[in-house]
Amino acid sequence: MAVNLPPPEAESLLPVGGVRLGAAQAGIKKPQRYDLLLIELAPGSEVAAVFTRNRFCAAPVTVAREHLAKGGIRALVVNTGNANAGTGSEGIRRARETCAAVARLLGCAPEQVLPFSTGVIMEPLPLERLIAGLPRCVASLRPDGWLLAAEAIMTTDTVPKACSERLDIAGMPVTVTAIAKGAGMIHPNMATLLGFVATDAAIASSLLARLVHRIADASFHCITVDGDTSTNDALVLMATGSAGVRFATGDELGFATLEEALTRAARRLAQAIVRDGEGATKFITVTVEEGRNQEECRRVGYAIARSPLVKTAFFASDPNLGRILAAVGAAGIEDLDVERVRLYLGDLRVAERGGRAADYQEAEALRIMREPEITVRVALGRGDAVATVWTCDFSYDYVRINAEYRT
Amino acid sequence: MAVNLPPPEAESLLPVGGVRLGAAQAGIKKPQRYDLLLIELAPGSEVAAVFTRNRFCAAPVTVAREHLAKGGIRALVVNTGNANAGTGSEGIRRARETCAAVARLLGCAPEQVLPFSTGVIMEPLPLERLIAGLPRCVASLRPDGWLLAAEAIMTTDTVPKACSERLDIAGMPVTVTAIAKGAGMIHPNMATLLGFVATDAAIASSLLARLVHRIADASFHCITVDGDTSTNDALVLMATGSAGVRFATGDELGFATLEEALTRAARRLAQAIVRDGEGATKFITVTVEEGRNQEECRRVGYAIARSPLVKTAFFASDPNLGRILAAVGAAGIEDLDVERVRLYLGDLRVAERGGRAADYQEAEALRIMREPEITVRVALGRGDAVATVWTCDFSYDYVRINAEYRT
Repeated sequence: MAVNLPPPEAESLLPVGGVRLGAAQAGIKKPQRYDLLLIELAPGSEVAAVFTRNRFCAAPVTVAREHLAKGGIRALVVNTGNANAGTGSEGIRRARETCAAVARLLGCAPEQVLPFSTGVIMEPLPLERLIAGLPRCVASLRPDGWLLAAEAIMTTDTVPKACSERLDIAGMPVTVTAIAKGAGMIHPNMATLLGFVATDAAIASSLLARLVHRIADASFHCITVDGDTSTNDALVLMATGSAGVRFATGDELGFATLEEALTRAARRLAQAIVRDGEGATKFITVTVEEGRNQEECRRVGYAIARSPLVKTAFFASDPNLGRILAAVGAAGIEDLDVERVRLYLGDLRVAERGGRAADYQEAEALRIMREPEITVRVALGRGDAVATVWTCDFSYDYVRINAEYRT
Repeated sequence: MAVNLPPPEAESLLPVGGVRLGAAQAGIKKPQRYDLLLIELAPGSEVAAVFTRNRFCAAPVTVAREHLAKGGIRALVVNTGNANAGTGSEGIRRARETCAAVARLLGCAPEQVLPFSTGVIMEPLPLERLIAGLPRCVASLRPDGWLLAAEAIMTTDTVPKACSERLDIAGMPVTVTAIAKGAGMIHPNMATLLGFVATDAAIASSLLARLVHRIADASFHCITVDGDTSTNDALVLMATGSAGVRFATGDELGFATLEEALTRAARRLAQAIVRDGEGATKFITVTVEEGRNQEECRRVGYAIARSPLVKTAFFASDPNLGRILAAVGAAGIEDLDVERVRLYLGDLRVAERGGRAADYQEAEALRIMREPEITVRVALGRGDAVATVWTCDFSYDYVRINAEYRT
């Protein structure tokens, strides 16, 4: 059902020096599916992350934040099938036990391990099965394990999400490879998904910490599937340094190239999450321009992108585009002058001066609505700020997937 | 499909002295259904209203606001099948023409008529058919036309919504009768529906203007179906004065009794709208207590009530109640201490101390989830404010109704 999202080919996913990946079928929720992933990082790697802002954040998020603050991260452990969220102090204990078990196997300290979980909320993490699966993860660690890793973190995803790129920075080859998961409970902030982006460039700790926020803002913070913000999710940026290229301040030659590539990878995965949004049949780009500031453009963009009425109209290919005007009007911009607002569907001018455009042809709108990829553009007529939000439509399958999620 | 919402019986809807109602089949959108309503008020009646806050408010909303400010209202005209919203200056012209046509028939000034429309957005109002239907509305004006009036304003509603009550105020009989419509695009602010509440008490203009806001806050501002705010909607409070009871300041004996009855009527209709929410199979009361203030209680209540993940879980009778915690955590209360939050389903304690309650039994939760009426109670543990929000679940039929709305 995913919209224009072919699965990645294994050989397209380039190893990143200093990163090895191993997965196992631990039976966390269901048997015979990869549900446990271990990412091992070479000594000296730097790691930074952005986490969910949900106050009911999961136990692994709390523990990962703590460990990340101490630095020296050597491994990430990710399970699907159980979020270990809404699990209180016992959940924290199990997240710590998970890290300790990984540390014993890899010969590092528990604080050097970051835990991640995704799946059902408010059910106890099956710690014994998880720990029993870890030796198989360790035994299968290899540099070219990215596709299996992408598969191992899937929940309601229908397609594994991964991408990779080789750069030339000052004559040195630098690699960026990234994986992500997410299909429902997708809305900023934060990223409402799991995303792991690795490079073999060296990036100093403080620079990496700023970079991960910039990348999130340009990618995972621009998407919504259902307006729900998850308890668990995180974007993690890893820089191993094995490529021999080093960035300390971000002012160095070549850093812009690397940041662009990292952002491109994150954005591609963020869009992949929308393309594979639960029940999605359309990929919709909402661009809001001529705002006073980016914040109000984002607000209007999200008002459109999360409106169930707008999303069901896209599902039905019904150019009932007044619903988009209603969403713009309800976005909370008190002094919006609707006379100045223009609405476009693709290149078709739909509305202006508070009403339907004079040359609007519904047949043309219908043709555009039937496309699998649609651009909605709203000009607010009050400034020069712009923001883009990506979303999908709202189908019977969204209801089915979420009604049957635990069965 | 409506949840515990039997249609009102005609004889239960008491005439309100000074109010006559007439309806016609004008063929606004579809043939052979009542889609045009005229409410005639006796001279000296006072009228107050609360309108949508959507910036793309409909043309009739703009015109009704203007006319209401001048006072002396003698009639309300309501059409379904077309919202006359997103229709620019031509829409305004047609709303004024509608008022002028009513005024000619009733022998009053156009400014004494309030227009209301509900239906598809951004399509031209079929003015000729509407005007052609008005004489039949006038010819059918009668005091006991409330049930037909409730039917004439339905759109995707499956049940007409009306209620009525006779009070004794200082030994005098006073009547309250009210109708409403609404099933989708339901979310504050404002009322996102049409509601017309009439009494034969006399209420001074300035008192009535304050009263309508208090009533809206206690009724139509406490509901959500899909989180979408309509372009058109209004709550109108009418006081004809024919009962001989007069309130000038609200301090008079008996006014509290009347306000309670008016609020009860509005709340009953607001809940009826949720019971008849598009595709609804469950009626859900969300009560948030122990907040610092009512605003944050409402915010948490709406975060739960509009979450597609929570609503699909209710549809499926799946006690996947971690989704409620996730909604609480994402409601934007930055300093919420999740250790103090408790979640109840009916009387069943579900979560406390950041996790599942020790004595929680999923079988009991499942039993409650299968009921057609469910109460969710969240205690925030940080104050003594309370707010209640009413909503419904999210089913396949919501998608079907909104995907097929214009067909």
